[in-house]
Amino acid sequence: MINQKDILINLKKVHGHTLKIIKMLEDEKYCVDIMQQNLAVIGLLKSVHQKLMENHLNTCFKKAFESKNEKKKQEMIDEILKVTKLFNK
Amino acid sequence: MINQKDILINLKKVHGHTLKIIKMLEDEKYCVDIMQQNLAVIGLLKSVHQKLMENHLNTCFKKAFESKNEKKKQEMIDEILKVTKLFNK
Amino acid sequence: MINQKDILINLKKVHGHTLKIIKMLEDEKYCVDIMQQNLAVIGLLKSVHQKLMENHLNTCFKKAFESKNEKKKQEMIDEILKVTKLFNK
Amino acid sequence: MINQKDILINLKKVHGHTLKIIKMLEDEKYCVDIMQQNLAVIGLLKSVHQKLMENHLNTCFKKAFESKNEKKKQEMIDEILKVTKLFNK
Repeated sequence: MINQKDILINLKKVHGHTLKIIKMLEDEKYCVDIMQQNLAVIGLLKSVHQKLMENHLNTCFKKAFESKNEKKKQEMIDEILKVTKLFNK
Repeated sequence: MINQKDILINLKKVHGHTLKIIKMLEDEKYCVDIMQQNLAVIGLLKSVHQKLMENHLNTCFKKAFESKNEKKKQEMIDEILKVTKLFNK
Repeated sequence: MINQKDILINLKKVHGHTLKIIKMLEDEKYCVDIMQQNLAVIGLLKSVHQKLMENHLNTCFKKAFESKNEKKKQEMIDEILKVTKLFNK
Repeated sequence: MINQKDILINLKKVHGHTLKIIKMLEDEKYCVDIMQQNLAVIGLLKSVHQKLMENHLNTCFKKAFESKNEKKKQEMIDEILKVTKLFNK
């Protein structure tokens, strides 16, 4: 994976940050502060999504398209569309 | 907090799920599968956002609006707009 | 309405821009260029959403909360949550 | 273009719908009703985005990847990432 290190750093931040938000909830912190932390975590995961897409297109996807397997190519395109649709929601 | 229990359940799922995604990355699982798990976590956090907003409007926000403190009311409105703007991004 | 003029300007831009995108499609322009124009229009409408929310909270919403009508207040909160949920999708 | 007809129908709906929203604003209709119409238009444009992406991947993109032009392939990948990033915002 091309940018695996960056992705891991972000996911570890998400993991730690989530614990912090759970603690804020249990300590009954102000809801707007909790919301802002929660939105920050969503931002990190959106950036992970972007990096995963970048990695995918430049590795597995590219490789599949260099083969002559038409069925495989179509599957790859359908996967991208499925993920884009999920993200769209 | 009104629906604290539901929010905690979702955040704990996010916490566990993130570890699973980190493991998938380290095991070099297929990037599209990782992307789908990542999008599922974003979905959970969006639902946490919605529940936090619901709780906020029905508690602190409502209370502030029942006072006669005009400055406080304006602050509450500005906070909602700030959070909506962040979410909008 | 507080910022009606700004909202109208944006909506008129959307109206004009959409015609331009239809023309691009009919002229078979490059799909990525069309996608970028389409995303620009989505950006304009998200900004309209933000301005409408700002206006709503500072006018009708604020006014309803200054009354003593508990049922009306709850309706106003439920409306905000409904709109936030729709936006969330 | 593969699904040009569907895309055109949606864009024409957006065009008409926008005029309706402008009229609602000028007639000072209830802001929450205007917000819901505005969100419906955003939904239509997101669906246009999805269809444009589908068309692009199955036509120009696929074709470029069937050539041996490495520079062109990289450009195609970078374009997808650019559009995904824009949508992400």
